[in-house]
Amino acid sequence: MTIQNVELGLYIDFPTYEKLELSEWADAVDAMKSLEEGAISNITEQRQVGHYWLRNPDLAADRERDAIYDTFASITDLEQQLQSQQFTTLLMVGIGGSALGPQFLVDALPPTDNGLSIRFLDNTDPDGFDVVLQSMVPQKTVVAVVSKSGGTKETRNAMLEVEAWYARNQLDFSKYAIAITVEGSKLDKMAESSGWITRLHLWNWVGGRTSITGVVGLLPLIFLNRDWRAFLEGAKLMDDWTRPLQLDNPALQMANLWFLEGKGQGERNMVVLPYKDALGLFGKYLQQLIMESIGKRFDREGNIVSQGLTVYGNKGSTDQHAFVQQLRDGRHDFFTVLIGVLEDRRNHLPKVLVEDDIGAGEYLLGFLLGTRHALMEAGRTVSTLVLNNLNEKSIGALVALFERAVGLYAERLNINAYDQPGVEAGKRAAAEMLELRSRILRGDDVEAADPFDVWMWTKHQQINASQ
Amino acid sequence: MTIQNVELGLYIDFPTYEKLELSEWADAVDAMKSLEEGAISNITEQRQVGHYWLRNPDLAADRERDAIYDTFASITDLEQQLQSQQFTTLLMVGIGGSALGPQFLVDALPPTDNGLSIRFLDNTDPDGFDVVLQSMVPQKTVVAVVSKSGGTKETRNAMLEVEAWYARNQLDFSKYAIAITVEGSKLDKMAESSGWITRLHLWNWVGGRTSITGVVGLLPLIFLNRDWRAFLEGAKLMDDWTRPLQLDNPALQMANLWFLEGKGQGERNMVVLPYKDALGLFGKYLQQLIMESIGKRFDREGNIVSQGLTVYGNKGSTDQHAFVQQLRDGRHDFFTVLIGVLEDRRNHLPKVLVEDDIGAGEYLLGFLLGTRHALMEAGRTVSTLVLNNLNEKSIGALVALFERAVGLYAERLNINAYDQPGVEAGKRAAAEMLELRSRILRGDDVEAADPFDVWMWTKHQQINASQ
Repeated sequence: MTIQNVELGLYIDFPTYEKLELSEWADAVDAMKSLEEGAISNITEQRQVGHYWLRNPDLAADRERDAIYDTFASITDLEQQLQSQQFTTLLMVGIGGSALGPQFLVDALPPTDNGLSIRFLDNTDPDGFDVVLQSMVPQKTVVAVVSKSGGTKETRNAMLEVEAWYARNQLDFSKYAIAITVEGSKLDKMAESSGWITRLHLWNWVGGRTSITGVVGLLPLIFLNRDWRAFLEGAKLMDDWTRPLQLDNPALQMANLWFLEGKGQGERNMVVLPYKDALGLFGKYLQQLIMESIGKRFDREGNIVSQGLTVYGNKGSTDQHAFVQQLRDGRHDFFTVLIGVLEDRRNHLPKVLVEDDIGAGEYLLGFLLGTRHALMEAGRTVSTLVLNNLNEKSIGALVALFERAVGLYAERLNINAYDQPGVEAGKRAAAEMLELRSRILRGDDVEAADPFDVWMWTKHQQINASQ
Repeated sequence: MTIQNVELGLYIDFPTYEKLELSEWADAVDAMKSLEEGAISNITEQRQVGHYWLRNPDLAADRERDAIYDTFASITDLEQQLQSQQFTTLLMVGIGGSALGPQFLVDALPPTDNGLSIRFLDNTDPDGFDVVLQSMVPQKTVVAVVSKSGGTKETRNAMLEVEAWYARNQLDFSKYAIAITVEGSKLDKMAESSGWITRLHLWNWVGGRTSITGVVGLLPLIFLNRDWRAFLEGAKLMDDWTRPLQLDNPALQMANLWFLEGKGQGERNMVVLPYKDALGLFGKYLQQLIMESIGKRFDREGNIVSQGLTVYGNKGSTDQHAFVQQLRDGRHDFFTVLIGVLEDRRNHLPKVLVEDDIGAGEYLLGFLLGTRHALMEAGRTVSTLVLNNLNEKSIGALVALFERAVGLYAERLNINAYDQPGVEAGKRAAAEMLELRSRILRGDDVEAADPFDVWMWTKHQQINASQ
């Protein structure tokens, strides 16, 4: 059964359409309503969850609404301020939610006309820094450092490396830098005192993995010379479509599909296959949005539930020459979401015929439909999402669809989709490892430590000292 | 327990080391020996499986050995022939095994000195073609079209679009084109008759997903100005290490890890997390190598076994801010292979201190070790692979390690790792879809067809005709 939204030019076929029992989802829909109205839905961190306000500020209370409108004004000002400076590249420094959303947008919506090219530092890998920085000209580069707290080590490290790169080029980094952070954070204060170009503000009521419709996503769109208002409009239209308790709510259908396929326990992986190069990072984007939100040990009452919903997938038809072999013939441990785009080329170049009356775009659609049949014949569940066009509006809608599905699914499971305690555990363990290194360097007794760790640090020291 | 190879600068910690029963693997090791000696190991297609010969031609029979040495000579000739022409970009046109290996190599081993930049067309997406072609200058671009049979539609379509791009620029494509294909194929004949720069040959005894140590991988290495002989040497050294039936055989340990974790049925996903930007595509590369090889319905006797081993993962520490939340706290449906590189920066730039005595590289290693502990504490199985350096030799070794593990694991399961019947099924279904389109366009009766397909084709026609 295919449901559609003509205004968005979007259609979705759900094989499980008839199996949706609205009564089972009434509480989840209500909970999302409360969330949109400002309830403290992130109970672990005692925070509101406000990403829906970003595209519909009138949903928010006065203070949050004003903050959002102020941001719209700030980024428009910034765009005009930088127009005269003839930058060619925006370098975004950030990790996780501060990188994946922008990376997805840059791939999905390439720069138009005078748009800048956008590069990323999203790790703490010195070799990775070198590869990216070597390819850029510091005088022509504007740098956006994105970190809510300013305390994320990877981002702090990358920022310091970029600062050193400007210094090696006899340039003052602060003249090229923009801070995107919570007001009053370490990064915010530093940017203010060093006289950075500007500071744009994040809020604690928007989580990293749902920050794409905030300044984190709007800034790259502006520099790509893309219509960020249309992006927000697409998300808002999807929010309106996915709010009510009704069968033709695609987010509810999506969440219900997840629930049925995984028996409420994530027993099947979701394979995301967009048939479009520009959507090649969407699977990776969803991997974070979904797995970080749903992968939780406890429910809200503290019961151990060990939830999760594994997501992977790159793009069709490329992946048909890779893992689709297993999907069709091997383990039935997954379901698939295919994504198609009907418009073949956005730049309106003339069609190149590859056979009598057939172009490459017909093949792309043929492969999508063919794979759909090949998988269904093998008894696999396939949901198919179709966009008329790939543009700011449809991308905004796509993002909002999955955001809402995650919210609804988490409510149904009674878990908090908005915290990430496991990430914190990894950070603490890393800090202990760096302490161990200090002890080794000082010659302290490390007999109680894991010999593998000691060996790794010792070897690391040798190899990098000898250079 | 950590095993090591000093010559390769490679160490692997296997938590399941002691659980390897050599007797259970004796038949698999023997089968791999027969394969290397030229047995018809790909029984479905009645072919030998010769990728091990590519790095050790003396293992092969005379004819295959000579063919390999001829290729070495041809690519060296080609390099010299093109040196005077000052190309800046190599465009590789190919899909699946003809793209994933080269893409991985380009990321792992960036161009040195006069190396070319390398771009890819690996799909049949007109919009994707436009994005890539817009960024290149045809006069400065040399194009390698990679297709064994010459019949792969995505590659054929991309080639025709590239040809049209040269024509729009008043240039003769054949003066810029290289064919990489089986001798006598459609592509080979066409390239010969059109007077392409040269033709390099593939053989039916090397499958696409194991073609990286053949001309498919060597050509990009040459154009990157990288030491392709060291790449082959690394693979050969790994082959020598992974051939015998012994506990310190890392491919056997890897295959055994897969077998134990997935209970011989692939019940757990493998998450690959290299802590190095340059290895960010390794998970995707392994996804093809492993899932296309292991994802099979039947064993060699025709019994239904529905095998598979799902692989995903991008890079650390980036993914720690994404799905590692689920790995640590959520469903225990996976095991992890962490990969570390001890040398921080290959270009030997001075270390940038991010804290007292600590650089970004120490953080990267700290995060790897921290995640290792955080996952082990949560009861997850973690195997850790460490390289001293990232270079041609270690990358060759890495590839050969997983190739051998796939071979051994498939032998243990008694499946054919070297065919891909499910891929063929998808191609047939796509051809039927294109026929349906023709019937719709001719106005034939299509009442028997799936209404979703009819609707999609009709809508596709409307949207692209109105441009």
